[in-house]
Amino acid sequence: MASTYKPEQARVPPAVQLPVPPVTKFKIALCQLSVTDDKERNIVHARKAIEEAAEKGAQLVLLPEIWNSPYSNDSFPVYAEDIDAGGDASPSTAMLSEAARTLQITIVGGSIPERSGDRLYNTCCVFGKDGKLKAKHRKIHLFDIDIPGKITFVESKTLTAGENPTIVDTGNDSKVACADVGRIGIGICYDIRFQELAMIYAARGAHLLCYPGAFNMTTGPLHWELLQRSRAADNQLYVATCSPARGSGAGYIAWGHSTLVGPFGEVLATTEHEETIIIAEIDYSQIELRRTNLPLQNQRRGDLYQLVDLQRLNSQINGNAENNSL
Amino acid sequence: MASTYKPEQARVPPAVQLPVPPVTKFKIALCQLSVTDDKERNIVHARKAIEEAAEKGAQLVLLPEIWNSPYSNDSFPVYAEDIDAGGDASPSTAMLSEAARTLQITIVGGSIPERSGDRLYNTCCVFGKDGKLKAKHRKIHLFDIDIPGKITFVESKTLTAGENPTIVDTGNDSKVACADVGRIGIGICYDIRFQELAMIYAARGAHLLCYPGAFNMTTGPLHWELLQRSRAADNQLYVATCSPARGSGAGYIAWGHSTLVGPFGEVLATTEHEETIIIAEIDYSQIELRRTNLPLQNQRRGDLYQLVDLQRLNSQINGNAENNSL
Repeated sequence: MASTYKPEQARVPPAVQLPVPPVTKFKIALCQLSVTDDKERNIVHARKAIEEAAEKGAQLVLLPEIWNSPYSNDSFPVYAEDIDAGGDASPSTAMLSEAARTLQITIVGGSIPERSGDRLYNTCCVFGKDGKLKAKHRKIHLFDIDIPGKITFVESKTLTAGENPTIVDTGNDSKVACADVGRIGIGICYDIRFQELAMIYAARGAHLLCYPGAFNMTTGPLHWELLQRSRAADNQLYVATCSPARGSGAGYIAWGHSTLVGPFGEVLATTEHEETIIIAEIDYSQIELRRTNLPLQNQRRGDLYQLVDLQRLNSQINGNAENNSL
Repeated sequence: MASTYKPEQARVPPAVQLPVPPVTKFKIALCQLSVTDDKERNIVHARKAIEEAAEKGAQLVLLPEIWNSPYSNDSFPVYAEDIDAGGDASPSTAMLSEAARTLQITIVGGSIPERSGDRLYNTCCVFGKDGKLKAKHRKIHLFDIDIPGKITFVESKTLTAGENPTIVDTGNDSKVACADVGRIGIGICYDIRFQELAMIYAARGAHLLCYPGAFNMTTGPLHWELLQRSRAADNQLYVATCSPARGSGAGYIAWGHSTLVGPFGEVLATTEHEETIIIAEIDYSQIELRRTNLPLQNQRRGDLYQLVDLQRLNSQINGNAENNSL
C-alpha cells in the first residue's frame, strides 16, 4: 500500500504498538450474577462467585453492570457508595479489593452506583492482584433511550456521565508496560454503542475490551451480540461482556447472554440468561495472527479520515510523559 | 445531555442534517447475478435482470462487484473499460446508462474493472433515471489479505485505490438537495471493513450505503452479515449489499448472500448463493424513528473523540460552496 494513503495518520495521535504482556494465555471468568435488592447479600454472593471463578483457574474476573443494587433510578442514590472514601463507605469495592488480593487475581468489578460529592455515577473499578485500585471508569455515555411501548430509560435523571476513557495496564510492575492479563479498555453497557470509544482503546494498545452491561429484552436480542462482535472484528481484539442474570421481579429485566468474543469477531463463549459463571480462555497471540491475516491498520486511509483521541492528543501536547504511551 | 459533551463536535465538520427526499418509500432490487468469462453475455444478462427488477417495481437497482468479468487479477486488465471515454470503449456502462434512461430507474452499477491511462481501478458507476452518470466510485481500500490455507488475494498487484469517498444525490433536479431515492454512500466490498467510511457517509447525510461486494467462503460466513448489520446499526441508516452468485468454476468463489439491512441493524431481506433478484422495500422514515429511539447523534462525546472527514473539511476551508453540504 503506497505511503500516500498515510495509514498511520488514521489515528491521531498515531496508534501505539500493541504491548506484549508476560501472560498471553489465561482464563477469564464472566460472572453472570443474580442481583437482589439486598446489598449485603449481593456482596457476599459476588464474593462467592469470584472465589469459585478463581478456583476454576480464572486469572481475570469480570462482574456485571450494577451488581450490588437493582438497576433503577430510584435505587441508584440509595445503593451508591463513596468509592474514593473507601472502607466502610464502600463495602462493595472493599470486598473486590480483598478478593483480588486474597485470590491473587485481577478483577474488573462490573459497576456500582458511585457517590462523589453531590453527584452519582455508574462506575467500574479494576483491582490488580495486589488488591490495589488500578482504574475507575465512570460510564461515559448515559443510557437515555425511548422506544415507546418497549423500553424507556433515562439514566441522566440521576446519574452524571464520566469524563474519561479508561484503559488499564493490569500489572503491578510499573517498569513492565503491560503485565499480567494485558491492557484492558473499559466501557459500561451503553458505552458499547459508540464505536469511537472502542477505536480509541484499540489505538491505545488494548488487547481486551471489557463491557459490564445490562441490555434489555428489546435491545438485547437486536444488538447485544452484534455490538460485541463488531467492536471485536473492526478493532481486531478481544471483547468480554458481563450482564446480570435475568431477575424474576418487576424491575428492569436484563437480557443476560454474557459473552467472550475473539479478534475475528467469533463468539468464543456465551450463555443464556440464568445465573452462571462462564470460564473461557483468552489467547492474545490470536490478535497478532488476525492483524497479519487482515492488516487493517496498514490499510486505513489516513489521507481521507482521522479519528482523534482528544485526551491523548492533549496529553502529548502538554508533554505529560506518563500518559504518552496511552 | 449537557452541552459540555459537545456531541456536534464528534464529527468534523459537523454532521449535516439528514436531507428529506421526495420519495421516502420505494423498492430496491439486489441483482445477485451469475458471472461468466463471456463479457458480452454478462452485459446482456445484467440488462435482462435490470429490466426484470424494474418490471417488479424497483426504483433503485444494485448490481454486484465485478459483474462483467471474472474476479481475478488476470482478468481485470483484459476486461477493463475506459469509462471516461464511454461509448464503444465502455459497453458495460453504456448499457447501464441506456437501461436507467429507458426504464426510468436509478442504477448503482455494481463494479467493473476500469482502465484510466495506465491504471486500473475497481469502479462503481451510478446512473440516474435520466441515464446520466451521477457518480463514479473507485474502491478506496484494496483487498489485500492473507489467511494461509483459506484465502489469499492481493488486488493491489493490478489495481490502484481510489482517492475519494463517494456520496451521490440521485435526483435530477439540482435545486432539490436530495431527490428520488435518497442520498447514497458507495463502497466496494473491502471498503465495508473500514467503519470510518460509513461514519463519514452518515455525517454527510446518507440514507443508504450501497456495497457491491464479493466476499469469499472464509470471510463471508465470518463477517459479511456482521459488517453490514453493524454499519447500519452504528450509523442508523440502510445498508444494501450485492454479491455475484456463486460460480461453479475454479476461480474465486463468491459467498453470495446479498442483503438489505434496516437502520436498527435488522436484516430485511437476504438470500443464499444462487442467482436471484431480491426485491425489498426501503422506508426512509424508519431512519428518523430509530434516531429518535436511540439519539446517538446527540449523545456522542465530541469532547473526547472526533472523526475528521478530511476532504469535506478541506472543501469548507477552501470555500468550495458546491461541496459544502457534502
